Amino acid sequence: MDRRSFNRRLLVGGGVAATTGLTSLSLGAIEASSAEPAVETAPAGGVVRHLKLYAEKLADGQLGYGLEKGKASVPGPLIEINEGDTLHIEFENTTDVAASLHAHGVDYDIASDGTRMNKSIVEPGATRTYTWRTHAPGRRKDGTWQPGSAGYWHYHDHVVGTDHGTGGIRKGLYGPLIVRRKGDILPDKTITIVFNDMTINNKPAHESPNFEATVGDRLEVVMITHGEYYHTFHIHGHRWADNRTGLLTGPDDPSRVIDTKIVGPADSFGFQVVAGEHVGAGAWMYHCHVQSHSDMGMAGLLLVAKPDGTVPGYEPHHMAAHGTAPEGAAKKTAKGTAAHDPAAHRS
Amino acid sequence: MDRRSFNRRLLVGGGVAATTGLTSLSLGAIEASSAEPAVETAPAGGVVRHLKLYAEKLADGQLGYGLEKGKASVPGPLIEINEGDTLHIEFENTTDVAASLHAHGVDYDIASDGTRMNKSIVEPGATRTYTWRTHAPGRRKDGTWQPGSAGYWHYHDHVVGTDHGTGGIRKGLYGPLIVRRKGDILPDKTITIVFNDMTINNKPAHESPNFEATVGDRLEVVMITHGEYYHTFHIHGHRWADNRTGLLTGPDDPSRVIDTKIVGPADSFGFQVVAGEHVGAGAWMYHCHVQSHSDMGMAGLLLVAKPDGTVPGYEPHHMAAHGTAPEGAAKKTAKGTAAHDPAAHRS
Amino acid sequence: MDRRSFNRRLLVGGGVAATTGLTSLSLGAIEASSAEPAVETAPAGGVVRHLKLYAEKLADGQLGYGLEKGKASVPGPLIEINEGDTLHIEFENTTDVAASLHAHGVDYDIASDGTRMNKSIVEPGATRTYTWRTHAPGRRKDGTWQPGSAGYWHYHDHVVGTDHGTGGIRKGLYGPLIVRRKGDILPDKTITIVFNDMTINNKPAHESPNFEATVGDRLEVVMITHGEYYHTFHIHGHRWADNRTGLLTGPDDPSRVIDTKIVGPADSFGFQVVAGEHVGAGAWMYHCHVQSHSDMGMAGLLLVAKPDGTVPGYEPHHMAAHGTAPEGAAKKTAKGTAAHDPAAHRS
Repeated sequence: MDRRSFNRRLLVGGGVAATTGLTSLSLGAIEASSAEPAVETAPAGGVVRHLKLYAEKLADGQLGYGLEKGKASVPGPLIEINEGDTLHIEFENTTDVAASLHAHGVDYDIASDGTRMNKSIVEPGATRTYTWRTHAPGRRKDGTWQPGSAGYWHYHDHVVGTDHGTGGIRKGLYGPLIVRRKGDILPDKTITIVFNDMTINNKPAHESPNFEATVGDRLEVVMITHGEYYHTFHIHGHRWADNRTGLLTGPDDPSRVIDTKIVGPADSFGFQVVAGEHVGAGAWMYHCHVQSHSDMGMAGLLLVAKPDGTVPGYEPHHMAAHGTAPEGAAKKTAKGTAAHDPAAHRS
Repeated sequence: MDRRSFNRRLLVGGGVAATTGLTSLSLGAIEASSAEPAVETAPAGGVVRHLKLYAEKLADGQLGYGLEKGKASVPGPLIEINEGDTLHIEFENTTDVAASLHAHGVDYDIASDGTRMNKSIVEPGATRTYTWRTHAPGRRKDGTWQPGSAGYWHYHDHVVGTDHGTGGIRKGLYGPLIVRRKGDILPDKTITIVFNDMTINNKPAHESPNFEATVGDRLEVVMITHGEYYHTFHIHGHRWADNRTGLLTGPDDPSRVIDTKIVGPADSFGFQVVAGEHVGAGAWMYHCHVQSHSDMGMAGLLLVAKPDGTVPGYEPHHMAAHGTAPEGAAKKTAKGTAAHDPAAHRS
Repeated sequence: MDRRSFNRRLLVGGGVAATTGLTSLSLGAIEASSAEPAVETAPAGGVVRHLKLYAEKLADGQLGYGLEKGKASVPGPLIEINEGDTLHIEFENTTDVAASLHAHGVDYDIASDGTRMNKSIVEPGATRTYTWRTHAPGRRKDGTWQPGSAGYWHYHDHVVGTDHGTGGIRKGLYGPLIVRRKGDILPDKTITIVFNDMTINNKPAHESPNFEATVGDRLEVVMITHGEYYHTFHIHGHRWADNRTGLLTGPDDPSRVIDTKIVGPADSFGFQVVAGEHVGAGAWMYHCHVQSHSDMGMAGLLLVAKPDGTVPGYEPHHMAAHGTAPEGAAKKTAKGTAAHDPAAHRS
């Protein structure tokens, strides 16, 4: 993968970088020659978006959220918006139990809380529109600083099984939600890893998902935890900053750089790594570092390929104990709100 | 609640904001008109304070700390001081077992360690003075930077039941301790939430405390954990910064903004939210997000009222499973050291 | 201990501080008189180092890493390098099972991953060279900021017992790894505390290690967790910043200052305290604050002596329940890579 494909977002996005400028907090002074393209960054938000979301029963008895009927998945679809955006989600519950949609991080009034208490759940066969708003950071009238909505958040059911959605979450009703700030660096690819009870993304033990990237890809990881247990998320050969973006803002950022993080239910964080940077191509394990959890199968692979597509030392058969073959879990980052109106993201 | 009452601290405090200036690190350049009052901030410390504290057996067999005889509570009273203050606490143990006072965060010599090992425990019926000192940040003579004492800390027994105070803590001998830095933003109201084993503030399951605020209130939460278990503290509709104050210092602060945080015994942190900001009035759950813990009753409500005092959608009867009626646990922030000499705080 | 001995590193190091300058991010403007020596700081890296490391079976059936044959210890030796250094470790496995070396934080290709999957384990009696590289922070060609390798990291076995090294770690195959950045403040002494399952440094319950320092010593703590359980690390009378170095960079650093931190397996962090600062000499407990864990013996002492060597109030016999007599676990910081070529560190 050469620099051109590494920067395909920029190429696709056309004048985006020029529009948003290179003055973002996430970027320093750029002294790149014209031959060294800069990364693409998130634009300002302010768009009103509409999304259709389904809760469905999957063939194996699990439950999932999906953007189209019959296409539900676990985790649910990546929803990606920008600070200032408003998202109206028409949620249809096709399952045979009441279900709901509760989000972390964004702004919603009690009608979109997704709880039985606030009468914002959805009976089987019914539809309800949830509205999530977001805002940019800024100074309040009283002089205090107000944080923006940007973050690696998530959404989940809050009613199946118990009033806290324990049954819904266990069966797969959860998904990632990214709110970006203007100037945030955009990745080439985003993957979602959910430690849900003793599973990864609800896969059976020893069948955890593998993910694919090519050396040089800017790979974004959204890491979410659910269920009962605490875990420690670890990835081999790659590190990130323990702050809002997972990226250091520059030399003065005091954040700890880590490759292991303790997490508990409903925690979420995200980061970007340049795949294989300083370590090269290979099959890099990611796993829970609680010893019994990794031994019981909470481990998968980040398969970082050379530009020719090969992964040194990787023998799929031999890897059986460490995860399944790569699958669709490594989603290309939808530009805009999931599959809906990618163009709007750029306006 | 209008802006005048929102700023009642400023009104009450008189010239405090003027005295401390508006140059605090926590505040940016203020461009508010005279009609837009600024928040009140903490003054410099340096005061020597005296406090009387009792350990008492409560009617239900629990133990509590209190500022007056017969007035012990669980959690114990909020103790709030400023960097540079010294606090002498005359501690009287009215229980029938040896008890003590051990603080986190502040400066104390071994005579105030509160441990049996350091001979700083108090026999039944006896009295002992514990001294806590605090200091402002500054540069050491060798050029290195010394942190100040500011923080959301706590105090607890270190001897009842075991040499680590396991029995005392379980029964309720713990409380919040805030050390503020000059310029720290003062809240309208402070509440304390303690996840102690499988309880919140030692309340029975499904009878967790509810807390009250009005839209626009600057509400401060001190969150402490004790006992055996890890938890994830979550609150609906509100977020905070994962740093010293829970507030971002400004646009360059890289801290993660979160609404869920993993915690273990003796962890403590604090933050301020503007009640209902961007989300409006309503009954907002706060709960442990470990699914079995919330299902077993570790959940309560933040009741954010409209200015007319009503909480949309809130039906106390229906809420029974989510917590008790509001109670005195939501303490007005004592100005100065708890109930003792509020005026001294301002000098 | 007077200021002269407090600054013995500077005295020993000769012109080091002058060489590295006092412009480090970790240090502010120095206005010290010539009578007030500044702290010593880490030089730039860039050195290629070679180290021999053995995995050995210890007399009590545990396993340890050591720099010399017959000198293995639990934890293994402190390995301390500077950003930019490369370390070639000739690893000899003298045990009767396959063993390996897996590092956190540093750069290594799959041949140095230390996993069975990547064919980088070592059979009994065999030798293998692992190579760890490190890099300084800097700007990538695309304008983004790349973090450096600096951190409080660790190394451990990844194959004994299970493919995740559960048996090797349980028996003691782990150790501390510090990568310093140019300008990082150097300590007078470094100690390593590992919470491994329900032990501290694999010591039996109630025989946890004690550590010694003198008031004014700049004591560095590397804290690592391994095994199955979550813990909360707490130390009496001392605090640190929850960031990369454990030290605030200055008044604008928003990091939380803490004295308790929740940790899980493979988490690691470090910090420096000035022993007894603001609290004086004494026997200061450090312990896991999960109540049952401390009650079962996860507690030891930091023995901070007065300049005359006495520790006020400390009676070794009385302390039996709180830890063993001080031992060699408090290692003087080897200047350079462990015991090998300290001089190289200064070149």
